[in-house]
Amino acid sequence: MPEVVFSVDQSKSMRDQAVPGHNRWHPDIPPAVTVKPGSTFRVECKEWTDGQIGNNDSANDVRDVNLDVAHMLSGPIAVEGAEPGDLLVVDIVDLGPVPQAEGPNCGEGWGYSGIFAKVNGGGFLTDYFPDAYKAVWDFRGQEATSRHIPGVKYTGITHPGLFGTAPSPELLARWNAREQALIDTDPDRVPALGLPPLMDGVLGGTAGGDLLDKIGREGARTVPPRENGGNHDIKNFTRGSRVFYPVYVDGALLSGGDLHFSQGDGEINFCGAIEMGGFIDFHVDLIKGGMETYGVTTNPFFIPGRVEPRYSEFLTFIGVSVDHRDDTNYYMDATLAYRNACLNAIRYLEKWGYTGEQAYFLLGTSPIEGRIGGVVDIPNACCSLFLPTEIFDTDIRPSAGGPQRQDRGQVAVTS
Amino acid sequence: MPEVVFSVDQSKSMRDQAVPGHNRWHPDIPPAVTVKPGSTFRVECKEWTDGQIGNNDSANDVRDVNLDVAHMLSGPIAVEGAEPGDLLVVDIVDLGPVPQAEGPNCGEGWGYSGIFAKVNGGGFLTDYFPDAYKAVWDFRGQEATSRHIPGVKYTGITHPGLFGTAPSPELLARWNAREQALIDTDPDRVPALGLPPLMDGVLGGTAGGDLLDKIGREGARTVPPRENGGNHDIKNFTRGSRVFYPVYVDGALLSGGDLHFSQGDGEINFCGAIEMGGFIDFHVDLIKGGMETYGVTTNPFFIPGRVEPRYSEFLTFIGVSVDHRDDTNYYMDATLAYRNACLNAIRYLEKWGYTGEQAYFLLGTSPIEGRIGGVVDIPNACCSLFLPTEIFDTDIRPSAGGPQRQDRGQVAVTS
Amino acid sequence: MPEVVFSVDQSKSMRDQAVPGHNRWHPDIPPAVTVKPGSTFRVECKEWTDGQIGNNDSANDVRDVNLDVAHMLSGPIAVEGAEPGDLLVVDIVDLGPVPQAEGPNCGEGWGYSGIFAKVNGGGFLTDYFPDAYKAVWDFRGQEATSRHIPGVKYTGITHPGLFGTAPSPELLARWNAREQALIDTDPDRVPALGLPPLMDGVLGGTAGGDLLDKIGREGARTVPPRENGGNHDIKNFTRGSRVFYPVYVDGALLSGGDLHFSQGDGEINFCGAIEMGGFIDFHVDLIKGGMETYGVTTNPFFIPGRVEPRYSEFLTFIGVSVDHRDDTNYYMDATLAYRNACLNAIRYLEKWGYTGEQAYFLLGTSPIEGRIGGVVDIPNACCSLFLPTEIFDTDIRPSAGGPQRQDRGQVAVTS
Amino acid sequence: MPEVVFSVDQSKSMRDQAVPGHNRWHPDIPPAVTVKPGSTFRVECKEWTDGQIGNNDSANDVRDVNLDVAHMLSGPIAVEGAEPGDLLVVDIVDLGPVPQAEGPNCGEGWGYSGIFAKVNGGGFLTDYFPDAYKAVWDFRGQEATSRHIPGVKYTGITHPGLFGTAPSPELLARWNAREQALIDTDPDRVPALGLPPLMDGVLGGTAGGDLLDKIGREGARTVPPRENGGNHDIKNFTRGSRVFYPVYVDGALLSGGDLHFSQGDGEINFCGAIEMGGFIDFHVDLIKGGMETYGVTTNPFFIPGRVEPRYSEFLTFIGVSVDHRDDTNYYMDATLAYRNACLNAIRYLEKWGYTGEQAYFLLGTSPIEGRIGGVVDIPNACCSLFLPTEIFDTDIRPSAGGPQRQDRGQVAVTS
Repeated sequence: MPEVVFSVDQSKSMRDQAVPGHNRWHPDIPPAVTVKPGSTFRVECKEWTDGQIGNNDSANDVRDVNLDVAHMLSGPIAVEGAEPGDLLVVDIVDLGPVPQAEGPNCGEGWGYSGIFAKVNGGGFLTDYFPDAYKAVWDFRGQEATSRHIPGVKYTGITHPGLFGTAPSPELLARWNAREQALIDTDPDRVPALGLPPLMDGVLGGTAGGDLLDKIGREGARTVPPRENGGNHDIKNFTRGSRVFYPVYVDGALLSGGDLHFSQGDGEINFCGAIEMGGFIDFHVDLIKGGMETYGVTTNPFFIPGRVEPRYSEFLTFIGVSVDHRDDTNYYMDATLAYRNACLNAIRYLEKWGYTGEQAYFLLGTSPIEGRIGGVVDIPNACCSLFLPTEIFDTDIRPSAGGPQRQDRGQVAVTS
Repeated sequence: MPEVVFSVDQSKSMRDQAVPGHNRWHPDIPPAVTVKPGSTFRVECKEWTDGQIGNNDSANDVRDVNLDVAHMLSGPIAVEGAEPGDLLVVDIVDLGPVPQAEGPNCGEGWGYSGIFAKVNGGGFLTDYFPDAYKAVWDFRGQEATSRHIPGVKYTGITHPGLFGTAPSPELLARWNAREQALIDTDPDRVPALGLPPLMDGVLGGTAGGDLLDKIGREGARTVPPRENGGNHDIKNFTRGSRVFYPVYVDGALLSGGDLHFSQGDGEINFCGAIEMGGFIDFHVDLIKGGMETYGVTTNPFFIPGRVEPRYSEFLTFIGVSVDHRDDTNYYMDATLAYRNACLNAIRYLEKWGYTGEQAYFLLGTSPIEGRIGGVVDIPNACCSLFLPTEIFDTDIRPSAGGPQRQDRGQVAVTS
Repeated sequence: MPEVVFSVDQSKSMRDQAVPGHNRWHPDIPPAVTVKPGSTFRVECKEWTDGQIGNNDSANDVRDVNLDVAHMLSGPIAVEGAEPGDLLVVDIVDLGPVPQAEGPNCGEGWGYSGIFAKVNGGGFLTDYFPDAYKAVWDFRGQEATSRHIPGVKYTGITHPGLFGTAPSPELLARWNAREQALIDTDPDRVPALGLPPLMDGVLGGTAGGDLLDKIGREGARTVPPRENGGNHDIKNFTRGSRVFYPVYVDGALLSGGDLHFSQGDGEINFCGAIEMGGFIDFHVDLIKGGMETYGVTTNPFFIPGRVEPRYSEFLTFIGVSVDHRDDTNYYMDATLAYRNACLNAIRYLEKWGYTGEQAYFLLGTSPIEGRIGGVVDIPNACCSLFLPTEIFDTDIRPSAGGPQRQDRGQVAVTS
Repeated sequence: MPEVVFSVDQSKSMRDQAVPGHNRWHPDIPPAVTVKPGSTFRVECKEWTDGQIGNNDSANDVRDVNLDVAHMLSGPIAVEGAEPGDLLVVDIVDLGPVPQAEGPNCGEGWGYSGIFAKVNGGGFLTDYFPDAYKAVWDFRGQEATSRHIPGVKYTGITHPGLFGTAPSPELLARWNAREQALIDTDPDRVPALGLPPLMDGVLGGTAGGDLLDKIGREGARTVPPRENGGNHDIKNFTRGSRVFYPVYVDGALLSGGDLHFSQGDGEINFCGAIEMGGFIDFHVDLIKGGMETYGVTTNPFFIPGRVEPRYSEFLTFIGVSVDHRDDTNYYMDATLAYRNACLNAIRYLEKWGYTGEQAYFLLGTSPIEGRIGGVVDIPNACCSLFLPTEIFDTDIRPSAGGPQRQDRGQVAVTS
């Protein structure tokens, strides 16, 4: 196993690690370690909420979660010789939950998925599911099952939800300006349109005093993906992938975490993947001046790995950009189209005895594929959702006989 | 080969066929034929513009296209015993260009793809490519190549862009109302926000006189996908697929066309697939009362076939919902995120010597996958574009040595 | 569609075509046509027995088949500039049954598969199934079903069983010598150990008189695959494949036929694929001196296409090189190991209500994969058979409840 | 992680473990542990030679290996309630090298592959490569590379080469009888036709004294696969697979080991996979009376898992059952056909600068697919070898330009 350059004791908060991580994007967060191009190393990660969620049957912890402290990231890792304009070539060598462990900390043989309450950010279907729910998943090799959602078993595509390089001061300033401008269009919206910098709960690695104040004042929140990568939540970002990150500061300063055991395209229940602590092994290299050479201006790109589970049987649900509740037509809105595809899938699964919340979790955590259909057919965008039917222990395809409805219990709720 | 229940002479307009088709959605368009559940039959189709585009090196025909007459659909096909509330089970048995033909009509050994001018509806990147362009494709078995885009070869996933059942009068009225409401928010926008009913160019099958007037006055345009299916432009809707269409009128009244030899997710250049005339073989059946039984309220769903080409090597580009031209942040806008992923891919391909227009065509016509990444990470939606690298005759993956730029000519332009 | 350089009227014998084909390998068979490197062209093919088998419910025609006339090959096609030592690069552009046809001739919407009687050559399991049987298959797009084997549907991997280049006189002489030597070890064996040249039934293209006599006297039979390619019966030799054939004579002289709609690895029932007449489109080119350049001495090699159907669910049966009937151990015999894997699969399928003959046909015609396991674990070779479970309309995987046995009728038998 | 029911200290011989394993098949070997149906547990395994091979650049250890002690198996594991006639349902939950370890013992971050000398059993091509060679492989996540074979990288399909249930006394007696009969046909052959029971080196778990003598006298050697499973060396027997083993004795007595990081179909270089020590996690259950219910008489069968790496680009080599060295024809000999396919692949790879030994190792260790082609085309069996081209860091497909030959060093040789 590669050398651990960032270690985590899963029983402790990220704040109390030997070298703490951070929960904001800022170029001044001191590197936790420096590595050489060509090296392979391990980074250990806490689950993204820093351990607030337990392996139990109550969703109170999801309802009461403190998001000021999220995401708890490992890093920054400085790469020798990296300069602005380079491409940082990152191979995801390996990735998994906490190795060889079963225990009370998330990632020690189990993970969870949460539907957040609307007041707490909500999820993709928060208008339809405004309350907090939780499902706990048990890991068995590469497969996950849940006592809260019987009758399904997934082969996970493990991946990090969030890794990225540090922004330059200029890029950070642009982020803050544009996101504040968006927030200002409807500052009281619930859920909020964006998350501005926040002193509460800030962690800046080994930074303290004035520097930590600055990080809190200026540091970008970690929820959205941006030019540096960040919280992509792309389920195919798995082992064997080679990622080309733009470099904006000397040393590149790679950080991340938010490991997922499995996730559907969209991560629609927000805390929607099967979340876990664990480890990730990287190999890093540089393409000097690669941003200009390869035309990279705004985002990483990557070569996906070849270890995704093979599924070949699907049910595909479709949605278009109409709000069918009040028959309002939106112009070429792929987000709405995908939301409708999700709702159509949920309605279908309910006919087989799944509760709406169970179906919502299923779409958030299983390896569904969310595809862009037509986005030019004025005015209706079209998206589709490919649900692999082989994750179910019964055949859920339609027939003249109708679905075999079963009682399937319930997910964890609040009390 | 199955019995042809709707035949097309490719050298003639759809208007001049023995039994003409139609180019509006309306429940009163007389059925062209009636079939029984359990039967297999063939439907022949014109290319969607009714033959306005030629196999030549000028994009003038794309620039000057008359869209009042599109899409030219084959049908309606009435299915005995189908009633509102049923699911019409449609197997796509086979599908292809005009069989055993090489000739001047689209689908006879060749197809085309167009980038439409902004004044003419534009495409997904019309702000970046506002003019008209064309590329012509030659078919060789299941593969397509283009003299206008050298160095690539695709194995096509042939599919119909557009098939659907007829709307009920009530559903049609709702479509017209909601789309007009959208148009009214910015009636002078270019491109238009929507396309209202239009007398000009209307074709209603065998209808004439008052009935044709009514169809022209009320009939929904065929461009957007809606509750009845319609213009999905889903590239995986291919041979071997089983589609479950909601039935809204007696007889179901299945119609369609807009056959594609190959298309990328999104069909981003609008007339973006490799368009062709040809044939499609269907098997139909019914699940009586299936809409309620399976929870179908708004859209078809389907089981995709198993004959897609195998590609396992990709370059994946990412975009988030920020307009990077002026650093404006949009809230959870998957459409914009996918647009940025497309732009990132185009910039990359330009480094290898493709013109922007060639790259745009590549993304519209090759079997790229457009995936929903995170759509919950406030405020930035994230989408990704998987470009199969095996379609290129050289290795286009990044290396320290940089891309090998080649001169690759140019697509067809206007004069 | 490409130019037809070898045409077949399916209602006539290969002998009675405008330009007849041939049924022996010999360098002196006159070319039927000459093509240029870089050209694309179509070859039409008769079903391999020259139309002796009918679409009916009796296996008498299979029992009484005259194999002296098989295989009826289309060609030879001379390629300009090809010389001994070159590699002939052959792209399989397209391939299918008789286009746009339904009729009484094999390939016109239907095909068949036969189990041959032991006295007539038998099949891979002839000791277990010594009599003649037949199953007829109906084509529906890319899928086949059989009234003789209900409950299964395959997506075919269409391919030619047999194509090859002409042998040089020296190579032909070596074939005849070595095969006669084998036959001489047990000249009376049933089935025969090999098939020597045979005057009866010989067809040599346009050759007549002394030349035809010579072809009959010397010409190698077409059953086995050899250094020139020939009767490989490799199911993955499908559309999109690029084959590199060794060239042994000036002009290369490419010939073949024996088209298959679908076949399992091994083609175990001998006439075991779903046999059909039809067409094949080729593109040809040359690598001059390619045999030496790429180390090719004895066989073609190829790059398989990417249009095979996707199956991801299998039951895998295993066999080792022991004859379990009398507990005789054979040394590292992969043939016997695969035979046992086949027998194990048949026993399993019988538990679900398939007759042994139906199961035998299933393995011969469906896209099963026959894999080499260990061939070094003294003394037992191990082979495995991957049966795609998605071809069945019910779930045939084992469970504690046991198999649901059904009555499934019977294949066509002799009278 | 599951409970470890059989533990191994990798720095010690299997003989010196707290509970030792065994290296013969015999029903009287005392169970090391008893587990319940429905339970999940871990078994740790030594590399198959009990640690005789080192991570160095000399093949002397391969040449001098003592095979009397192989294979060193973990177990037997008794399953409560298992009786003869049942099927033991074994899920391979997880599998890998020694977790979280880098060190001198095989499986601690590295593995090896050996070509055995002909006097020592040889391999599939021992007539062509009669001497001993070795290649050492480094593991990086799911990928392996070798300093002895530069320019390739595989994503491993980890699997156990060998697991099985204990034979009944009757079955064991039949094995010994039939294998001795085979040996007696040529008792002095090198390599031997079979391996009879052997006192030297016998290990029988906790058995000693008379019982150990009996095990040595009667116990079947572990090299061949047989009715109980055993040394299948099937590369697709990977994580997520569900295996159905016949039960021949009370408690079933599952044993095994011989873990492989990666292997090609055939394991052609004999010690041919990338060998390693490590762990395997199982879940077990029973189908009572399942052998009769499902028609299982002679071998296990299985449902393969869905976590194999996706490869879609191949070069396919072909062989037929002729010994081309002296033009001898063999009847329907799939073993010889596959050998020729291997030789053809090696000749091809040599043109790119690989030595014959490197190419031999490549075929033994990379995820090549060995397929049965026709096995009915008298007299020539046909087999094919699918070599995934994506394992190479350069494009090795043929072109008119010829191969780019490179110097690639050499494997480890004897001194």
